Amino acid sequence: MENNSARPVCILGLGLIGGSLLRVLADGGGAAYGYNRSTATVDDARAAGYDASGDLPQVLARAAGDDAVIVLATPVPALSAMVAAVAEHAPGCLLTDVVSVKEEVARIVASGHPSGRYVGGHPMAGTAHSGWGATDPELFSGAMWMVSTDDGTDPDDWLQVAGIARRAGAFVVPAANDAHDRAVAAISHNPHLTAAVTATVGAGESALALRLAAGSFRDGTRVAGTAPELQRAMLEGNAMALLNTLSETIDRLVAARDALRDHGSVDVVVNDGHRARAAYEAIALVDPTPIEGVVVGESGWAAELRRQGHRARVWTG
Amino acid sequence: MENNSARPVCILGLGLIGGSLLRVLADGGGAAYGYNRSTATVDDARAAGYDASGDLPQVLARAAGDDAVIVLATPVPALSAMVAAVAEHAPGCLLTDVVSVKEEVARIVASGHPSGRYVGGHPMAGTAHSGWGATDPELFSGAMWMVSTDDGTDPDDWLQVAGIARRAGAFVVPAANDAHDRAVAAISHNPHLTAAVTATVGAGESALALRLAAGSFRDGTRVAGTAPELQRAMLEGNAMALLNTLSETIDRLVAARDALRDHGSVDVVVNDGHRARAAYEAIALVDPTPIEGVVVGESGWAAELRRQGHRARVWTG
Repeated sequence: MENNSARPVCILGLGLIGGSLLRVLADGGGAAYGYNRSTATVDDARAAGYDASGDLPQVLARAAGDDAVIVLATPVPALSAMVAAVAEHAPGCLLTDVVSVKEEVARIVASGHPSGRYVGGHPMAGTAHSGWGATDPELFSGAMWMVSTDDGTDPDDWLQVAGIARRAGAFVVPAANDAHDRAVAAISHNPHLTAAVTATVGAGESALALRLAAGSFRDGTRVAGTAPELQRAMLEGNAMALLNTLSETIDRLVAARDALRDHGSVDVVVNDGHRARAAYEAIALVDPTPIEGVVVGESGWAAELRRQGHRARVWTG
Repeated sequence: MENNSARPVCILGLGLIGGSLLRVLADGGGAAYGYNRSTATVDDARAAGYDASGDLPQVLARAAGDDAVIVLATPVPALSAMVAAVAEHAPGCLLTDVVSVKEEVARIVASGHPSGRYVGGHPMAGTAHSGWGATDPELFSGAMWMVSTDDGTDPDDWLQVAGIARRAGAFVVPAANDAHDRAVAAISHNPHLTAAVTATVGAGESALALRLAAGSFRDGTRVAGTAPELQRAMLEGNAMALLNTLSETIDRLVAARDALRDHGSVDVVVNDGHRARAAYEAIALVDPTPIEGVVVGESGWAAELRRQGHRARVWTG
């Protein structure tokens, strides 16, 4: 991916993810501009020196004019309207997104813009805060950025989207949409539910309990503080995969309760968890291994990228 | 609590908690010394300039000689042997502990040293690491330190134990043992189980999932990395209270699953969790309110301390 082949980037939605992306791309000298529905956000972005507008048709006409890559960066409930506007005002532009589910977004795009070119994406970055005020050009630095990689994906389009992730400072993780959705159900959406319930049980006990709460509660419930409407959009958009991981979570907690009640032991649940955490740290706490031996566009490139992505390797392009 | 009334402190067990306590008390100029079973730990502590020994009868004879306050700082499974040794070699010394359950420890002390003077304690501090190498004299700085506060507690003994917590940099939270055990089941022991299961479900999905794991997984599963034997001792020592909070956790997750399956909604679980996290932050992220209007030893002091402790206030002496 050479930088001089990079096209302008047009970002629809300047919240935490979209706003941070606008900042890092523009700070890096790239052509990048954005749209946000809220005048306050547009004013904040402009005051910070970024190119932002609240006029969606005008922004999309500009994108069509300079053949920009359009990034959908709104929550799921707002996507249909955005896609319809793209289909109307910038039908030829390559589309990507930064939404936390991929099958649902692919359906929305296919339905609202059947002739559109679309390669999905999902940067694994965030905080419990949201909105322009929480944006940070370093948000994606060293983060993983899933890019949809199907047998039918156009290699040039894939390289454009992967290039955005790389310019944002992220590593590219190639995956199929369904595999992504199962993965994020397990490592993001399910943790939101366990954090929420863990918080509720703790706070329901007493003010004394919250007074005594220390690191395990602070860290274990942090994401419960994310804005509820963002959590709902994210989790409900991945309901099928989440139901599976939630059911497994319940089964394992029931087994833990039975062992504790009948044998006074938490041996199995604690050992399983310790082994799982070690497996996570072995992947997450070391430099990622780059994908090797794949030229994007050559025969079988997408399947080979997915195969290496499944082994936790990353594309560094 | 005046510093010049502080007695020497003898710490049995120099792991993360006991070792950190030895360091902060000695660094502060107080008389403090410790015992550990492992020669390696004793050597490490001595090499760092601290007063440590592997000879338990000798350490306890010294404590008896200088009327030290003895701090039990071993995991629950080692406590009975420690208490028996105290009863034999230093029966007149005031005993306290830093163990994460209070009713079980009180039973062990009452059984092994019926004539002993004992005021329980529990500093709410820790990391996923353990052993002398993880010790930190700042570990208790600003932390909450529960001190057992019953109607029969001797006020001078209470002040000695509370004084140790204060010299370590902690705030004192007065509470009854059973209230403490319910509280820590809800905000510490239960979070260990949800973290373990959340980690297991995530790691069971795929290496791709662990590759994509970001902040929610990292923070939400952190305590699953704690040494399994320490987790087992802590959780199994509070089995009754933990069974209650674990059952509530399961019930709430089942309700969340049913709502997601039948109505596609995570509304209730996410909103409850968000409200709970806000309640926690309102207590934990502000300076604690000091207990006022209580003179330890005056009529009704213990009940009044507990009452204010239940309202999340702290004793600052």
